[in-house]
Amino acid sequence: MSKKEKEIAAFHEAGHALVSTLLDGTEPIRKISIISRGMAAGYTLKTPSEEKRMKNKKEFLGEIATLLGGYSAEKIIFGQITTGASNDLKKASDIARSIVKEYGMSALGPISFGEKEELVFLGKEISEERNYSEQVAAKIDKEVEKIILAAQKEAERVLSNKKKLLEKIARTLIQKETIEKEEFEKLVSSLTDKKDQKDKPAEKRPKSLKITMKDVE
Amino acid sequence: MSKKEKEIAAFHEAGHALVSTLLDGTEPIRKISIISRGMAAGYTLKTPSEEKRMKNKKEFLGEIATLLGGYSAEKIIFGQITTGASNDLKKASDIARSIVKEYGMSALGPISFGEKEELVFLGKEISEERNYSEQVAAKIDKEVEKIILAAQKEAERVLSNKKKLLEKIARTLIQKETIEKEEFEKLVSSLTDKKDQKDKPAEKRPKSLKITMKDVE
Amino acid sequence: MSKKEKEIAAFHEAGHALVSTLLDGTEPIRKISIISRGMAAGYTLKTPSEEKRMKNKKEFLGEIATLLGGYSAEKIIFGQITTGASNDLKKASDIARSIVKEYGMSALGPISFGEKEELVFLGKEISEERNYSEQVAAKIDKEVEKIILAAQKEAERVLSNKKKLLEKIARTLIQKETIEKEEFEKLVSSLTDKKDQKDKPAEKRPKSLKITMKDVE
Amino acid sequence: MSKKEKEIAAFHEAGHALVSTLLDGTEPIRKISIISRGMAAGYTLKTPSEEKRMKNKKEFLGEIATLLGGYSAEKIIFGQITTGASNDLKKASDIARSIVKEYGMSALGPISFGEKEELVFLGKEISEERNYSEQVAAKIDKEVEKIILAAQKEAERVLSNKKKLLEKIARTLIQKETIEKEEFEKLVSSLTDKKDQKDKPAEKRPKSLKITMKDVE
Amino acid sequence: MSKKEKEIAAFHEAGHALVSTLLDGTEPIRKISIISRGMAAGYTLKTPSEEKRMKNKKEFLGEIATLLGGYSAEKIIFGQITTGASNDLKKASDIARSIVKEYGMSALGPISFGEKEELVFLGKEISEERNYSEQVAAKIDKEVEKIILAAQKEAERVLSNKKKLLEKIARTLIQKETIEKEEFEKLVSSLTDKKDQKDKPAEKRPKSLKITMKDVE
Amino acid sequence: MSKKEKEIAAFHEAGHALVSTLLDGTEPIRKISIISRGMAAGYTLKTPSEEKRMKNKKEFLGEIATLLGGYSAEKIIFGQITTGASNDLKKASDIARSIVKEYGMSALGPISFGEKEELVFLGKEISEERNYSEQVAAKIDKEVEKIILAAQKEAERVLSNKKKLLEKIARTLIQKETIEKEEFEKLVSSLTDKKDQKDKPAEKRPKSLKITMKDVE
Repeated sequence: MSKKEKEIAAFHEAGHALVSTLLDGTEPIRKISIISRGMAAGYTLKTPSEEKRMKNKKEFLGEIATLLGGYSAEKIIFGQITTGASNDLKKASDIARSIVKEYGMSALGPISFGEKEELVFLGKEISEERNYSEQVAAKIDKEVEKIILAAQKEAERVLSNKKKLLEKIARTLIQKETIEKEEFEKLVSSLTDKKDQKDKPAEKRPKSLKITMKDVE
Repeated sequence: MSKKEKEIAAFHEAGHALVSTLLDGTEPIRKISIISRGMAAGYTLKTPSEEKRMKNKKEFLGEIATLLGGYSAEKIIFGQITTGASNDLKKASDIARSIVKEYGMSALGPISFGEKEELVFLGKEISEERNYSEQVAAKIDKEVEKIILAAQKEAERVLSNKKKLLEKIARTLIQKETIEKEEFEKLVSSLTDKKDQKDKPAEKRPKSLKITMKDVE
Repeated sequence: MSKKEKEIAAFHEAGHALVSTLLDGTEPIRKISIISRGMAAGYTLKTPSEEKRMKNKKEFLGEIATLLGGYSAEKIIFGQITTGASNDLKKASDIARSIVKEYGMSALGPISFGEKEELVFLGKEISEERNYSEQVAAKIDKEVEKIILAAQKEAERVLSNKKKLLEKIARTLIQKETIEKEEFEKLVSSLTDKKDQKDKPAEKRPKSLKITMKDVE
Repeated sequence: MSKKEKEIAAFHEAGHALVSTLLDGTEPIRKISIISRGMAAGYTLKTPSEEKRMKNKKEFLGEIATLLGGYSAEKIIFGQITTGASNDLKKASDIARSIVKEYGMSALGPISFGEKEELVFLGKEISEERNYSEQVAAKIDKEVEKIILAAQKEAERVLSNKKKLLEKIARTLIQKETIEKEEFEKLVSSLTDKKDQKDKPAEKRPKSLKITMKDVE
Repeated sequence: MSKKEKEIAAFHEAGHALVSTLLDGTEPIRKISIISRGMAAGYTLKTPSEEKRMKNKKEFLGEIATLLGGYSAEKIIFGQITTGASNDLKKASDIARSIVKEYGMSALGPISFGEKEELVFLGKEISEERNYSEQVAAKIDKEVEKIILAAQKEAERVLSNKKKLLEKIARTLIQKETIEKEEFEKLVSSLTDKKDQKDKPAEKRPKSLKITMKDVE
Repeated sequence: MSKKEKEIAAFHEAGHALVSTLLDGTEPIRKISIISRGMAAGYTLKTPSEEKRMKNKKEFLGEIATLLGGYSAEKIIFGQITTGASNDLKKASDIARSIVKEYGMSALGPISFGEKEELVFLGKEISEERNYSEQVAAKIDKEVEKIILAAQKEAERVLSNKKKLLEKIARTLIQKETIEKEEFEKLVSSLTDKKDQKDKPAEKRPKSLKITMKDVE
């Protein structure tokens, strides 16, 4: 990995970690690293809190914003993005599609839209078309777009507000390659202290995100 | 399961049970539980009355409203819904699609719309397109939406009217984890007494639901 | 089967039998029963007259109206329909699609529209798209709808005109469970006597059905 | 086969034979029969002239009109058609589709439109979509419709003009069940004599069919 | 093969050979024959010049016009075309589609449009849809049509200008059944002499074809 | 390979090499050759710099412009293009589709659009439709077109500006068949010296490409 790539990876991972920390309802960061693993140039691990059976839309939006945190950090810092975000985009888009099509959490209401209906004919399952019209397909695309763009806007907003902290985390990563839980918490401690002011997590702030979320709803 | 999840599960199951009880034509509740089973965080069992060969649209709408009772309770109590309702939405949507496509119970009339026509060609079945046009697909989607939204509106209406009872059932569930038939009947006995007034089952009331159902028809 | 279901089944089967009797070109009734068989809550058997090689549109419309006789009787008597008609709707819709797509008996003229063209490629058959455009698919749907709705209207018209006879047949069925050919003929004998008046079979009457059929054509 | 069916079959086969005789470019009739074979209620055989390698559009239109001769005879004589024509319609429609899609004989010009492109991927052939857009699919449908309707109009025109001869052939068929070449030629000999007048084959007449064919082109 | 068919075949093959000779960039004719081979009623062979690795659009248009030479000759001489051209149309249309979809030689620009994307999922390839929208499919159809119609117009133009030579070649073919290279060159020698005048190959003439080709571009 | 083909191949490869050199962010040229390999008439090799894990949009645009360098050189020099570019177009189009559908680098934003969703049903994977609507498919096509056309414009612009150098490289190739790294660098040394003026790589110039890229974004 070149020096430039290391720098991009550092801001990318710092973006994930910081968005996650700034938004409520997401698990605390356990480790950030820019030691590459398989295809990925770095990784960010969260503390698995108690095993969750249910997720609500706000948590999904937090997850999507966190996933887009790397993409957004690259865009804010370098003015352009890299292919390193493609897996994040895939995951974020899949979640957004599920929100609309499986969980009834969009303007389309509590209707389930599926790609197949279970058809068994003479003992053989049959591959099936989607069970909705082109008109509904276009509406689903619109809802997915609203969700992703709102999450992206939120990720960019919180990272822009905390650009110095983002840089501090990234610089530390470039230097040490890996940041453990304790160090990360120290890095963002300024945040936690003043959290109730301007930078407190999204759902405790009355204005911007609420609006964002209504927008999405 | 966290305390928060337990609370959500309790209101979710209470929602199913209460909508079912408030709407006519649905079987009596046999048991409600928030002891998780497999993927589900809780369950509500109904007394299987005599085995049914035929169902009419009113019964289907009651079933759909009952299925959306969990989703609606979460929305009324917590202001948002969780993924716990996704299986309910799938079942409700499947019923709504059958109402329109197989049972001739929508504005599209007694026409059967299918996903396949049985084609056997040289001893091999062939996967087949749906046997209707995009225009009809869009009309089916509209009818399905009307049915689901009317059922949701009905579920939310009856739960909002009986919010205190909903809370009473949910609180009991949180405390005891399981409510058997007798206890449930005691909990809702106030209802049965005054059933003929303001809260009597939908199809005995002359106004709202009749209108809703015409709407859907 | 509950008492209520038995009653529905009786009117359903009586509807089939009476529409069949009132419309020309359909075979005489051999037996009606509400003893359930397999999935069906009852059945109506016709006398197979000489084996037929050719059918015309009037006969098909008679068949479709007869198939919709159960659905229509339920609607007239109970104000709503049950799932018991779904197989009838499937058959009626399949006939209507064949009328339009295979037999050249609709406004689309003597053109055959198919779901597949036989393609064999390197010894393997290939599943194939329909051989017509979305525009034609929408026209086929319109023609199918016209046919089904005209047949339904006709079924409802003749059953409404003979509602007392419908009830007489249904009541007899509820009481005896099965009506044989001779008894059925006695029940409808009043009809055959006065057939040439107001209730004579559709195609002998100059007005309504002729119009209906032109409508469909 | 009932007497009625025999009559329909006789007019149907007579229709094929007479349209074929009245239109140029079609082979002479070898035999007509209403002795049923397999699914068919009758058949008409033509003399295979020298084996043909090439066909032109006029010959195809003659073939289509001949195929629709049975359908048209039924319509003219009985005012309605039967399912007996469905195989004729299938063949006629297939020819019309080939005229437009394979032979470049329609307003769409010398472009070949196919249902598949040969794709072999890792040693496995892949089923493929049609290689043209919905817009072209609709244009193909329009051209096919023009061809079929022009041929039907032509078939009805020549049969209406020679209705008495049609009846003579059909009556003979009903009586004898089979007409051999010589007898058929005697039956239509009046035609051949006056052929150059009013009833001469279509393409020798300057007006009507030429116009029809231009229409189709 | 009938005398009539032989005549058609002769003009068809003469059409191929003459268009090929009159247009630049096509290989010289090696042999023309109306001795039927397999399904084909005749054939025209060109001298394979040096093996070609690259073709440009002008060469493709020449090939398409040559392929449509048989179709165009039939149309000019007999006023109608036969099924004998169907294989030519298929080849010409396939080339036109490749020009647009693979070679970036149309108004759609240097974009490659394909029928499949290579998808391997769990060790199994998956049949895939085309990788472009209906809008693009319609644009591709428009470009293909422009190419084919321009080539047809060109083929008809050059054959109409040299109708006497076309007849001379065809008559020779009818008489001798096969024309070898030397004889063909003698037949068209008048051409080569005056080539620089009115009949010189298309791309050397400043007006008509250039315009045609711009049209196509 | 004919002399003409050799000339085309030389300009084609010179086009790739020169666009690559003139645009920033692309690896240095290692070797250019017009000795044919397999299907290809020539090849251009770049120095693999450090292995790259991440690519940004500017690098992709550089790659696409380089891929279109052969196509553009043929167009500028010969006024038309050959089939030799088809593989380049395929690669360039695939990259452009990935930019839009996988990497979130187009006006469609950070949404991932896929051809399949992983569906496993009873242990069998199922071939799946694309997971977006026709409307989105058309938008994707528009974005892909914008990217390709901007890259083509850029490639043509830089080659037109350096036409003499393009000819110098091509003439050297025709003469020597292969140009190694050192010789290539000498050929383009004039460039490197004056790079900061008129011909410096695109992204260092303030105007044209920046505009181009905004255009594309």
